[in-house]
Parts: sequence; structure tokens; C-alpha cells
Amino acid sequence: MLITNVDIIRADGTAQKDMSVAVKGGRFAYIGKDIPPGEWGEVIDGGGNILIPGLVNSHTHVPMTLMRGYGDDMPLESWLFDRIFPFEDKLSAEDVYWGSLLGIAEMLSSGTTSFSDMYFHCGSIAKAALESGIKCNISRGVSCFDDTKRFVDLPAYAEMAELTGEFHKQGDGRILIDAAPHSEYTTRPDILADVADFAAANSLRVQVHLSETSKEHLECVGRHGKTPAQVMKDSGLFELPVTAAHCVWLTDSDIELLAENGVTVAHCPQSNLKLASGVARVSQMKNAGVKVAIGTDSAASNNNLDIFEEIRAASLLAKGVSLDPCALPAHEVFYMATKAGAAAQGREDCGDIAEGYRADFVMMNSKRISMTPDHNPLSNIVYAASGADVEMTVVDGRVLYRGGEFLTIDVERVLYQVKRCVQLLLAK
Amino acid sequence: MLITNVDIIRADGTAQKDMSVAVKGGRFAYIGKDIPPGEWGEVIDGGGNILIPGLVNSHTHVPMTLMRGYGDDMPLESWLFDRIFPFEDKLSAEDVYWGSLLGIAEMLSSGTTSFSDMYFHCGSIAKAALESGIKCNISRGVSCFDDTKRFVDLPAYAEMAELTGEFHKQGDGRILIDAAPHSEYTTRPDILADVADFAAANSLRVQVHLSETSKEHLECVGRHGKTPAQVMKDSGLFELPVTAAHCVWLTDSDIELLAENGVTVAHCPQSNLKLASGVARVSQMKNAGVKVAIGTDSAASNNNLDIFEEIRAASLLAKGVSLDPCALPAHEVFYMATKAGAAAQGREDCGDIAEGYRADFVMMNSKRISMTPDHNPLSNIVYAASGADVEMTVVDGRVLYRGGEFLTIDVERVLYQVKRCVQLLLAK
Repeated sequence: MLITNVDIIRADGTAQKDMSVAVKGGRFAYIGKDIPPGEWGEVIDGGGNILIPGLVNSHTHVPMTLMRGYGDDMPLESWLFDRIFPFEDKLSAEDVYWGSLLGIAEMLSSGTTSFSDMYFHCGSIAKAALESGIKCNISRGVSCFDDTKRFVDLPAYAEMAELTGEFHKQGDGRILIDAAPHSEYTTRPDILADVADFAAANSLRVQVHLSETSKEHLECVGRHGKTPAQVMKDSGLFELPVTAAHCVWLTDSDIELLAENGVTVAHCPQSNLKLASGVARVSQMKNAGVKVAIGTDSAASNNNLDIFEEIRAASLLAKGVSLDPCALPAHEVFYMATKAGAAAQGREDCGDIAEGYRADFVMMNSKRISMTPDHNPLSNIVYAASGADVEMTVVDGRVLYRGGEFLTIDVERVLYQVKRCVQLLLAK
Repeated sequence: MLITNVDIIRADGTAQKDMSVAVKGGRFAYIGKDIPPGEWGEVIDGGGNILIPGLVNSHTHVPMTLMRGYGDDMPLESWLFDRIFPFEDKLSAEDVYWGSLLGIAEMLSSGTTSFSDMYFHCGSIAKAALESGIKCNISRGVSCFDDTKRFVDLPAYAEMAELTGEFHKQGDGRILIDAAPHSEYTTRPDILADVADFAAANSLRVQVHLSETSKEHLECVGRHGKTPAQVMKDSGLFELPVTAAHCVWLTDSDIELLAENGVTVAHCPQSNLKLASGVARVSQMKNAGVKVAIGTDSAASNNNLDIFEEIRAASLLAKGVSLDPCALPAHEVFYMATKAGAAAQGREDCGDIAEGYRADFVMMNSKRISMTPDHNPLSNIVYAASGADVEMTVVDGRVLYRGGEFLTIDVERVLYQVKRCVQLLLAK
């Protein structure tokens, strides 16, 4: 594939005008001012549009797209116990498949090329991801409320083992399986340690929820005399590469701990606001050297999967809460949603537009009103654009979405099946 | 016009399914389950889409769309003095016209049917608004930094007088002219009093900036021994119907004062975050009985005019800052952006879908991914939708935007002219 006449914005926010980009074997083969000689499959005139690295959604639960708008404006406990958990109890593998395809379609159409997920019926998520062409790190959340059970006794263990055997590194590495102790408050230190051992034995990365709410933090300190981050560290979990979602209630020492152990924080600003968890101290984390990526969390608490909104919210919130208009500038949040997100997934050759990198990229329509005038294209992308300004989404050099059309997903069928599944679930 | 097969969401958030809506003479003539007899001009099958009242942007500076992305991530003073003011100094009436049309196109395409504006070269804004078919309350911002000048000596006075004579109640009342002392910190008590007198004499409403930053609040107290709200009250301004933008740093007494005097607060959550002004205490205002509407502020500090983002930010921020997930629920922020906004403009027959009301409405595409599933259409609109989900925008029964096409604005020409104006301005 050869794309001419585009402006490029790199992961670090630097812009290059009037460029050509060639893709071979799913990777960027040439990036420069000239049109490289040779035979190219498809030649696309970029028409002055803007190429950005594919965006990475570092924390979501994609099947929960089925629960968009199912519970809002409710206290957290009744949201969980009266709405989310009873709905989830009824979910079949088929429901999870259609819900995943809906969420994947939403992400592709809004510029996300890779996502990290934690849920159950994960084979259905993997199937949807494989079919759609998107990248993802899938994890089966492990929780345990029965003190007589060890990790290997749990259904989650069996699903993890099967998932890892069947899908890890499938689709030319597009699908990766991660390990995922759900959180401190839904497990025990021995479970955390056992999951860490399983991850180490199978060369898996780790996803986890960490210090999302004040209640979680306080109860953990009451239970263990330690913060959730300290409990995880002491269980050996931080010896693995970890992405920790939320991190709203970290102490200063926790922030040091995460920096020392190379943990990536998946910052989910809108979900943290909507569930009234609070505002994560991302500027402080950055200053302490913590790696930060960006996630939407699920559509049940967001309520969409448009990562552009999340990038913007991350920057605006940091400014508004610190009363510093220079906090988390555009290039920093852009990096979080591109290179930092890809690195957190263990995809060191993704998340940037550079020769040799995987050709995961998004073409933004520069003729949109929100992209006009073009004083500063990066500013327009971070502070003005939305997923609706995406013209084309490409993963491993394969066009998956273009001009409003999905090339791998029958979206009409997905919309129909999702409505059918939801009707049946509500009738149960 | 007759629209069949639509769901309606009223300003108070209540939903009615499978409705028909008839429009005659620019007003809703029938709303109900049946198809009313009679001859109808255009008959539109709504196809199960959702009608909502036209959204009202209660505070913006529409020509500043020319400055989208012109300065970000900067300290407030250098943003203003090195970027915004020098750019504004060069603006011609023609620049303001094209910038206004760009912003109006952006608003129409994202569901805004009416806006309140404060700027200069206001004749150009009025011309753009008249041509486009949108509603607006236009005001010429009055500021004075010369102690020897009184209100009547200012160029702003001359422009206000001319504007009021030429455009007030033009376009069947679509254009209203408001009076606008810019703020406490850019005027003097005698100027505020004189503008109040002018407004009273000409039956104008008032727009003003109020307590946007901590600095403004502290310096006013230092100067007058009173808060900006008290200075305005004591100048007689609050005897008129006032919309006060921002109100981030109100004291508890100020909140009481605004409630007692029926002042509407134009809450601009994203601009307040981006400029690091802070977070307005909207829940407390609501509890005290203050009327609250929603504004984007300008694209120089937002950086777009999509009011859906602003509605969502208002709700999410209120929850996240108060740690109460029930704060500012969907129906309350929706009301702020519809009926409350219209009432603040003095348009008591706008902002709702009800017989006899002006037919200002927006059709949302219910087949979009972000609107699926439809557990709760109001929730989808407030928490998941964006301006990109708008299918059709109608003002006074006249279709101005439909399926991506503008019916009154040559948007290609506007995009071209904006780029031309900006190039010339930057070259000056």
C-alpha cells in the first residue's frame, strides 16, 4: 500500500507535512517526502489528510458495550449489585461475542487499533477480535470470594489455561493473552501470587484494577495494613510487566512504587468521574516517572469507547484540577494513547509511524470543521477532534474501516444481533 | 412538515415512543400518537430516530473559531497577551463573518439551534446568523481601560446602539441583541450601571463574564471590598435578566445572591478546565435554586463547539468532584442545555418539544453504534452521543442541516475563506 500527500504526526507529537508512506508485509516500509519506486498494491491519495499512529485503549471490558446506558446516576453499590452483576450472570458466550463486535466496531470507527480487555467468556472476545482484524490483549479476570478455593480450583484458572493455549500470539501476534487478577479487593495475596506464577510460567503480561475507589484503598489498609499497590508488590506481581487500571487513590509512596517497578497506569478519566471515584493524579505520576496510558473503561461507565474523548479529558482534567494550564500538554496525552499504550501491551513495534514499525495507523479527515483552521494539527486532534473525524483505520497494513464503512464487520448484523441478545437477556 | 415514527425526549428528560410531530408556521402544531389529517408539505419518515429539543449554547464567542488551536498549554497571561489579543486586534468585519459562519456550521451540525454570543464586529455575526437560519442572542462586549472615558464615549457604545437599532428582533425574532458589560475586571461600576441603564431603556437582556478565575475574584475584593457578583448587584445590573458565564469562584453568599436575583449561570466546564480556571460548583448552585445553562465558550479555549461534550462534562465533573455518582443526573444537564438555555435567552417558547412551541429540534440517528443498545435513550444522548450522531437540525420549522449536508451554508466556501482569512491575518 502506498499513501501519498499526507501530514504525519508521530507519537511524540512532532508533525511532518506532505509525506508519503509505504506499507509492506504489514509494516511501514518507507516514510518520506518522495514517492518510493516499485510496484504498490493500492495507491491512496491522502488529499492532505493527517496520519496518526493507531490509538491504544489500555483498559476496557468490551462485551459490556451491551450494558451501555443500563445504569447511570446510581450509587456504586446498587449500580453493581442491582444492575451490572445480575446482567452479567446471564451473559452467554454468544452475547459476549456480539457485544465484543459492537465495541470493536465502535473502536475501529473512532481510531482505536488495539485494546486491552479484562472479562470472561474470553474465547468469544478473541474470536471477535480475530475476525475483525483489531489487535488486543485479552485477559480473563480472576476473582475469588471463597476462602476454601485456591487459584487452580477456580473456573477462571481453567479458562485462562485454555485461552492461553488456544489464542496467545494468534493472528500473527495480533491477539495476546494477559493474566489478570481482577483486583486486591476481589482476590487474596495467595491468589495474586499464584496468578503471578502462572503469568511468569507462560510469559504473560498482567492487567489489574488498582486503587480505583477510596473504599478499596481504606478497606485494604484495614485488612492488610498495606495499600493495594503494596499488597500486589509483596505478592510478586510487580516482577511482571503490569498495566494497572484507574490508580485514583495511590499514596505518594504507591506512586514511587509504581515508578520503581515499571508499572503502567491505565488512566480512565471519564469512568473515574462518572462512577464518582475521583481524579487520578496523573501529573504527579508523570513527574515521578510512572508510565501512563489511556483507557476508556467499559461503555457501562463511560458510556462510549471514543478514545479521543478520553485523551482530551485526561489533559483538561489535569489542568483544571491543578489550576495549571500547562499541565499534561497535548503531546504528552497523545503519547500516552499511542506509544505508551502499545508498550504497555508489550508491542514495542507498534504505536508510532516509523519505518519497521507495524503499520497501525489512522487517517484523520483534515477537511472537517473541527480540524479547521489548521494552526496546529496536533492541537486539533487532541482538543477538538472526535472519533467522527476518523477517515480510515488500518491495522498491520490492512484497512479495517474507511469512509464510514467497515471492511471486516457486518455492522448492520451486529446492531441487529445486539438488540436481539439484549431483549432476550432482559426477558430472562 | 410532518415527521412520523420518532421517539421524543422532552426538555425534562421524559421519553415518548412512536410519535408523530407536525409543524406549521414554524411552531409545533401537533404532537401525538396519531397522524394528523390535513395537507402537509414535507412528510418525513423518522425511521425510529429520536427527536430532542434544539440545544442551546449559552456562552460562546463564535468568531473565535478562527483561533481554534492557535494557543494551548500556555499560561493564561501569555495566551491572552501573546496570542489572543494580538490576533483579535487584526480582525476585520469580513474575518468575523467567515469565522462566525464556520462556528455556526459547527453548531448546526452538532445539534445547536441557538447560541448566546459576546464579541465585536457584531454586525458580521448577525449577518452570518440571519443567513444561516440559526437563532442567537448577540452582544457587543463592553470593556474600558481608560479612566477618563464614560460608557457613551466608548466605541462599544456606538456599536451597541447601531446593532440594537439594526438587528434586535430581526428574522422573526431569531436575532436578539443583548447588552454585555464584559466583566467586572474589564469595566468600572459606573460603566456597569450605564450599560444596565442602556439595557433597561432598550429592553435588552444582559450577558456578562463573572468570577471566572481566582485572580479576578481576589483582585475585585481587593479593589472594591466586594465580590464581582456584589459589584454587579450594586451597579443595578441584576435588576435585568442576566446570563453570567463561568461563575467558578462564587462564594456561598454569591450563590444566594444569584438565586435571589434570578441570574442564569452559563456553565462552561471544558473551557474552565482547559484555562485552568477550576470547576464551578454547579450542584451547590442547583440546590440553592440558581438557574444553570450550558455553554462551550469559544473554540480558542474548548476547542470545539459540540455542546454534547459540554453536557456530558457538566454531569461527569459534578459526580467526580463531589464523589457522588448521583450528582447532576442526565435529565438535569439535559434540561440545562435545552429549556434553561432558551429561557435565559428570553425565548420562553423555545427549548422544548410541545405544541405551540417554536419548532427548534434535532433528530438523533438511533442506528449509530453509540446509540446501541437502547436501554435508555436519554442516557445514550447525555453519556454516549456526540454531535456526529445528529441526523437533522431544524430551527423555526426550517431544516438547516440534514444527513451531513448544510441547506443554508456553503460549507466548502466557508472552509476555504476561513483558511484564506487566517493566512492573511497571520501574515499581517
